[in-house]
Amino acid sequence: MEVSNINTQGDNCEAHRPAHPGIFTMREAGKSDHCSAERCVDFPVSVVLPAGGTGERMGLQTPKQFCSFLGRPLISYTIQAFESVSWIQSIVVAVAKENMDLMMDITQRFKHRKVLVVPGGSTRHRSICNGVLALGEERSAAGKPKVVIIHDAVRPFVEEDFLCKIAMAAKEQGAAGAIRPLVSTVIATTSEGYLDHSLERAKYRASEMPQGFTYDVISQAYQRCSESDFEFGTECLHLALQYCGTNAKLIEGPPTLWKVTYKRDLAAAESIIKETLSRSACVITGGLAEAVNLADALQKAVGALDMELDIIPDLMGDNSRCLLKEWNFIQVSVSHSCFSEVEAMLTALEAENRALLHPVVVIWVHLSSMDELSISRRVHTAIMDLASTAKHRNILIYGIQLNQAKDTEHWERSASRVAEIALALIRDRSPALVGQLLQA
Amino acid sequence: MEVSNINTQGDNCEAHRPAHPGIFTMREAGKSDHCSAERCVDFPVSVVLPAGGTGERMGLQTPKQFCSFLGRPLISYTIQAFESVSWIQSIVVAVAKENMDLMMDITQRFKHRKVLVVPGGSTRHRSICNGVLALGEERSAAGKPKVVIIHDAVRPFVEEDFLCKIAMAAKEQGAAGAIRPLVSTVIATTSEGYLDHSLERAKYRASEMPQGFTYDVISQAYQRCSESDFEFGTECLHLALQYCGTNAKLIEGPPTLWKVTYKRDLAAAESIIKETLSRSACVITGGLAEAVNLADALQKAVGALDMELDIIPDLMGDNSRCLLKEWNFIQVSVSHSCFSEVEAMLTALEAENRALLHPVVVIWVHLSSMDELSISRRVHTAIMDLASTAKHRNILIYGIQLNQAKDTEHWERSASRVAEIALALIRDRSPALVGQLLQA
Repeated sequence: MEVSNINTQGDNCEAHRPAHPGIFTMREAGKSDHCSAERCVDFPVSVVLPAGGTGERMGLQTPKQFCSFLGRPLISYTIQAFESVSWIQSIVVAVAKENMDLMMDITQRFKHRKVLVVPGGSTRHRSICNGVLALGEERSAAGKPKVVIIHDAVRPFVEEDFLCKIAMAAKEQGAAGAIRPLVSTVIATTSEGYLDHSLERAKYRASEMPQGFTYDVISQAYQRCSESDFEFGTECLHLALQYCGTNAKLIEGPPTLWKVTYKRDLAAAESIIKETLSRSACVITGGLAEAVNLADALQKAVGALDMELDIIPDLMGDNSRCLLKEWNFIQVSVSHSCFSEVEAMLTALEAENRALLHPVVVIWVHLSSMDELSISRRVHTAIMDLASTAKHRNILIYGIQLNQAKDTEHWERSASRVAEIALALIRDRSPALVGQLLQA
Repeated sequence: MEVSNINTQGDNCEAHRPAHPGIFTMREAGKSDHCSAERCVDFPVSVVLPAGGTGERMGLQTPKQFCSFLGRPLISYTIQAFESVSWIQSIVVAVAKENMDLMMDITQRFKHRKVLVVPGGSTRHRSICNGVLALGEERSAAGKPKVVIIHDAVRPFVEEDFLCKIAMAAKEQGAAGAIRPLVSTVIATTSEGYLDHSLERAKYRASEMPQGFTYDVISQAYQRCSESDFEFGTECLHLALQYCGTNAKLIEGPPTLWKVTYKRDLAAAESIIKETLSRSACVITGGLAEAVNLADALQKAVGALDMELDIIPDLMGDNSRCLLKEWNFIQVSVSHSCFSEVEAMLTALEAENRALLHPVVVIWVHLSSMDELSISRRVHTAIMDLASTAKHRNILIYGIQLNQAKDTEHWERSASRVAEIALALIRDRSPALVGQLLQA
C-alpha cells in the first residue's frame, strides 16, 4: 500500500499552539459531563478519517471535504480538532487517488503533524479498511493503537471531552458510537411509495460519528466481512456486532457533531468559526490617556454585544501572551501618520505564525484632531499598502478614524460607532475591505 | 376560539410583488419536475403552520420561529413563501397565547395578507388541530378549503412546485407527505444503551414537511384520535392512517425543506437568503461616457464572480422595472458632490415599499478626478447622513470612490477593486458599515 507519512516526530509544541476554536465553540451544545482526558486516556489512540467522497449532494464541483471557508479546506478543520488532542497519536486520512496530492498539499500548508495520507477505496468501508490496515503496518512509526476512532472528515466540530468518552467506552466494550435523537419521524414505505407504518421515535436513534473500536475488533471485523458488506454497508457498528459479536456502547453526542452535507452546512460551519473567532479582542493603547479613554468606552460598548475586550498598553513582557491567544487586535493610535505599532504587531504575528489556521484581524483606530482630515489621503495609501501585503499572510488590516470631539455626547456616540464598526469588521472578516479607513 | 383575522380581502397586488427569494434560491436542490400550478390546482387550498414551539433546542431565548435574520423573523419568511403562491387562499398560524401579540405585529409589519392567527395548544397536534378547526369555522372569510397543507414555521424554503405536488396528491389520495432519504443510519438501542440492531437504510425514509390532507381526512383524524395521540404523537400521516384508513402518498422533497433546528441553521438560512439577494444588481450610469465605461468594466469583473449586472442609463420609463425586481443598485456618478440620483432612487424605492421584505443595497460609486480628495469630508458627511436615514427604512447605502486614472492598467485595477468591494458590500449587507465612503 502506498503510504505517505508526512510527519512522525512529535515536535512537542502542542501546548503552545492555540486550541482549535472548534474545540470551545459549542454554545449550542448541552454542557456535557467533563471527562478528564489526561487521567483516563493512558493508551494509544489513532484516528481514521475516510475522505474519499465526491460531494455529489453538495451541488458543488469540489468534494465537500475540500471545500474551503475562511481560506482553509473543511478537512483541515477536522484534522486540527484531532491534532489538538494530546492523547491522539496519529490521524490516517483515506482519500481518492486523484486527491492524494491535494491532501498532501493541505497537510503541508497547514502544518498538520500527525497525518498519514493513504489511498481510499471505492466505498466508505474500503476506505476505512485501508486506514485501519495502515495503522497495523510497521511503516506507521507511531505503532499499533489500542483504540481506533473513526470519524467523518466533514464533521469538523468534534470535542475532546466527547472523544475521551468514546475512546474509554471503546476500550472497555470493544466498540462505542455516537448517537443523536431522531430529528424527523422515520417511516417505512410500501413499494408503491405509500406510507406503510411509522416508527416510534423514542425507540430509535440516529447513528453518528465518531465511533471507537479496539484495534482488534475493527481489524477482525474487516477481515471477516463479506464483499457485499464492503460494497453496500456503511455502518461500522454493525460489522462489529455481526462479525465480532460486539454490542457497541452508544453515547449521546452534542448537536455540533452534525455532518456538513449540503452547501448550506458550509455556511453554517463558517458562521460557527467566525462567531468563535469574534468572542474577544485585545486593545493596545500605547498607554496614552486619550487612547485608554477610548478603550474603556469600547469595552463598555462591546460588552453589551457579547464580546470581551482585553486592554493592554503594549505587547511587551507578559502582555505578549495576547499575541498567542487572540484572533483580533485593536491598535489605538493618536499620532496621526505612524503605523509603526501596527507594523511591529505584524512582525510579531508572523514570527508566531499566528494566522496559519485562521485569519487574524488587526484594526488600526486613529484618533485624529478636527483639522486633520486633509492628511487622510496619505494615511490611506499607507494603510492600503500595508493591508495588501498582510492579506497574503492571512492578516486582515482595517482602519477606523474618529475625531477627538469636544463634547461628551458626541464622543460617546463616536466611541459606540467605533465599537459597532470594529465588531462588524471582526465578525465579517471580509478580505475585500482590507485597507479601508472607515469613519466613526 | 379566539381568532384574529388580520386580512381577508385579496388586494390583487400579488403579481406586482417580487417573488420571495426563497422561491428561486435552491441551487442545491435537484431540479424537480415542473408541476404547472395554474393548470392543476383549481381547488381551494389553505395552510396550517403550527408555531407554538419554545425553541429549547436552539440554545436561544427567543423561540426559533421568531428569531430574526436580515431584520425579519423566520416565520415571516415561511409565510411569505406561501403568500407568493397564488392558489393558496389562507395561512393559519397557531402560536402560544403569550406570542399572539408578537405574531400580529409581525403580520402587520410585513404586510402579510393571507394570515389568520389562532392560539396554539400545549402540543404540536393540539396546535395543528386548532388551526384546522379555525379553517372550518364560518368566521374564516375564505371558506372551508378542499385541501389543508400542514407545514413547519421553521422550514422557510418551501417551493411552489413541490406544494403543487403535495396538494394534488392530497386531493387524489386523501393524504400526502414529503420524505427525504435518511442522512444517518437508524439504530435500535437496548434499554442499557447498547446497539441492538441497525435498520436497513434503503427501506426507510425521514418524514418531513409539508404534508397535505383533504379537509375531511384531517378533521376526522383529529375528531377521532385519542388524548394520548394529542399528547405524545407528532406525525399527522400516522393519524390519517390509523383513524381514516388513508395511506398517504409519499413524495421525495428537495433538501431545502430542511428544518431550522439549531442556531447554526439560522446562519445557514441567512446565508441562503443573502446569496439569493446577491445574484444580480442594476447599474445606473446616467448615460455619461466615463460612467458607462466603468459599468462595462464592472460587468466583466463580477461576471467571473457569479453575479449579473444590468446596465441602464436611468430609472425612467421601462427601466423603472428594475426598481421592482432588483435588490441591489449601483449608481455611478461623475459629478463630485451631488447625491440627487441616489435621493431620487430612495424616494422611488420607498414609494414601492421595496425594502419591506429584504434590505435593499444602494452603492454610490463616485468617479473623481485626482485633485478632488480634499472634498471627501463634505461628501462623506452628506452620504453618512443620507445613509443613517435610509437605514431605518431598510435601505443600506454605501459609497465607493475611485480616481479616473490616466493609464489603462491602473484603471482596470481600480475597476476590479470596485467590483470586489461592491460584491462584498452586497453579500454582507452589513448595517454597521452604511454611509462609509470606501476607496477603490
